Amino acid sequence: MKIIEGGVCAANGFKANGIHCGIRKNKTKKDLSLIFSETEASAAAVYTTNLVKGAPLTVTKKHLENGKAQAVICNSGNANTCNANGIEIAEKMSDLVSKELSIDASNIVVASTGVIGQPLEIEPIANGIPELVKGLTKDGSEAASEGIMTTDTVKKEIAIEFTLGGKVCHMGGIAKGSGMIHPNMATMLVFITTDVAISPKMLSKALSSDIENTFNMISVDGDTSTNDMVTVLANGMSGNDEITSEGEDFDEFMKALNTVTIYLCRMIAADGEGATKLLECKVSGANDEKTAKTVAKSVICSSLLKAAMFGSDANWGRVLCAIGYSGADVDVTKVGVSFASAKGTIEVCRDGAGVDFSEEIAKEILLEKEIEVIITLGEGTFGATAWGCDLTYDYVKINGDYRT
Amino acid sequence: MKIIEGGVCAANGFKANGIHCGIRKNKTKKDLSLIFSETEASAAAVYTTNLVKGAPLTVTKKHLENGKAQAVICNSGNANTCNANGIEIAEKMSDLVSKELSIDASNIVVASTGVIGQPLEIEPIANGIPELVKGLTKDGSEAASEGIMTTDTVKKEIAIEFTLGGKVCHMGGIAKGSGMIHPNMATMLVFITTDVAISPKMLSKALSSDIENTFNMISVDGDTSTNDMVTVLANGMSGNDEITSEGEDFDEFMKALNTVTIYLCRMIAADGEGATKLLECKVSGANDEKTAKTVAKSVICSSLLKAAMFGSDANWGRVLCAIGYSGADVDVTKVGVSFASAKGTIEVCRDGAGVDFSEEIAKEILLEKEIEVIITLGEGTFGATAWGCDLTYDYVKINGDYRT
Repeated sequence: MKIIEGGVCAANGFKANGIHCGIRKNKTKKDLSLIFSETEASAAAVYTTNLVKGAPLTVTKKHLENGKAQAVICNSGNANTCNANGIEIAEKMSDLVSKELSIDASNIVVASTGVIGQPLEIEPIANGIPELVKGLTKDGSEAASEGIMTTDTVKKEIAIEFTLGGKVCHMGGIAKGSGMIHPNMATMLVFITTDVAISPKMLSKALSSDIENTFNMISVDGDTSTNDMVTVLANGMSGNDEITSEGEDFDEFMKALNTVTIYLCRMIAADGEGATKLLECKVSGANDEKTAKTVAKSVICSSLLKAAMFGSDANWGRVLCAIGYSGADVDVTKVGVSFASAKGTIEVCRDGAGVDFSEEIAKEILLEKEIEVIITLGEGTFGATAWGCDLTYDYVKINGDYRT
Repeated sequence: MKIIEGGVCAANGFKANGIHCGIRKNKTKKDLSLIFSETEASAAAVYTTNLVKGAPLTVTKKHLENGKAQAVICNSGNANTCNANGIEIAEKMSDLVSKELSIDASNIVVASTGVIGQPLEIEPIANGIPELVKGLTKDGSEAASEGIMTTDTVKKEIAIEFTLGGKVCHMGGIAKGSGMIHPNMATMLVFITTDVAISPKMLSKALSSDIENTFNMISVDGDTSTNDMVTVLANGMSGNDEITSEGEDFDEFMKALNTVTIYLCRMIAADGEGATKLLECKVSGANDEKTAKTVAKSVICSSLLKAAMFGSDANWGRVLCAIGYSGADVDVTKVGVSFASAKGTIEVCRDGAGVDFSEEIAKEILLEKEIEVIITLGEGTFGATAWGCDLTYDYVKINGDYRT
């Protein structure tokens, strides 16, 4: 397996594009993206568990009932959520793309991201779609990744090459993250494409299983979005024997999918709103997986720890505190904590109490951009990893006046 | 019922004091407080549910097993938590006070607040206790309230006068709050005194019932502290007939207790770390109390809404979002949202969708220091109130380097 260029266009048969159509006032910011597969693809998606759901999710869910799709249309700048005419607008987006691409409207995934509760005008989208379709290209992944960004500061894109039953296969993904990131059985916007042949049922199985250890283990701010969605389109153009059951090929596919999703998870967490650092919390020694996950997520969500990490302060008491209130059944007198980065690893707590450590070395380690919080529970053999970021002045600034 | 001066010394028979003994380096900051009742009092307490518990809580729990106490000793600047010798130190604090006051050590409530995981030296406390006891006075509530402050910016103190069975009674309380405030079946440090005669059993019942709608409905940052504790001492010196069962007197006592606790709740929320505004979320129209509470707490905890309130931005979509992920069973198409303050009330959402409102008027309302987020669920008759504060640059600043 190797990392390659091309993002969502790396897989055979996929093209993409992203343009500024006018939803955003700032003309230098793209706001409309399209991903297209030459042939109908198996499709699977997971959605937010927020009861307040973006209208596009309702339309997409209906379209994916048969497990097939051929295109993804997504705008940024407006979430099309909590609007009286939301469904109507989402359907119109789908109809316009269907007409321009001459494909079935029910084969289109619709997504929106941005402000909640402001009516989304169809005009700029209608005006933009011809240009968007005309510009579809094998080099279009970067433009598409730009078109879905909100407060993201970097594009989030990855592609890999791997082999299945002797056939060279590809998989790529783009994502937007930044704020309102605390996925719960679902996630932020992620679009993944692959040329692997896999049945809709197995694709859905792979995705549902994967997100439990990837996107559902990220938190930027504890707020679960209304518009979260991860979609995978698999068009089968690599020519492998279709995966229709568990086995070696399915395991290999899961490995590929996990590589793509973990990469995007880390990018989303590192680019959390206002973030200066990626935090990775690695828990081991738990009696079961649920305990390990609960502890990892509780620690990664602690505002106090996040602020301490911003200040490069080895305040391990806040790690213990977050373990203690996590709800997990843990013997706190067995807990160990270390901090690690490219500059090294330092143990700060053993058996639930502090150890003598050099504040100087700890500071040097914590000044890095990628920090690991390593927790040992000293009981069993289960582990989990969660991703997050530090809490900074800029998070407050960005969210103090997001709508203007 | 009327508000009076005197704090925890307003009730007959109570004295208090607070001094700087040297736990803190800053000599202008008090760090040791004492509250004393001339006679043995009924005592009740609730504690944090965090599995990581401060050593003083363990000692206090043991001391309060018989429902009696006569003094409270509390230091700030160090939480005496996650230290190998924590219990020993907490017991020493109790023994020293016992000796100096000539009262039973098992009648002493011990509490600590501050940094977690740094050994607490007994020397400054031992040296300070004689001076602390010598200075006990009826005017000492203010000094005591200062001695328990951490990052608090204002003293939190209240006292009331009320009548029970023809007898004039008093109740007063002091509190410290600020950060790591997200009580869960317990709360931050609060000490309440009263001269009401009430059995330990009924006092405990009153306190447990009260906190469900008061301290357990505050959140500053989602982090449940390791050292939370609320204690009430009732010494019976007002001469009322002892309350030993439910009835009119108990109801009156509950009303008095609720007045004191709500006042302290609002002060703690308004003085959350870095806060510039008190947020009060009032939910009505729920099918049951649990739903109302879940919704109110979810909204008050949303980092995104807290940041929007800092920016005086009427971003009601974030209110809807937080209701949607709260886990409560709510029909989002029936939800209404208004913002209110001393400057007026403005409706921003009806039936789950936005209404046309003047951004200018909304801004004027949200620029005030006390903001109400009013939510109607449009289903039943139950309601709940939660308290919190905005999320600001200063929260990040305070917590980026708390230990130094």
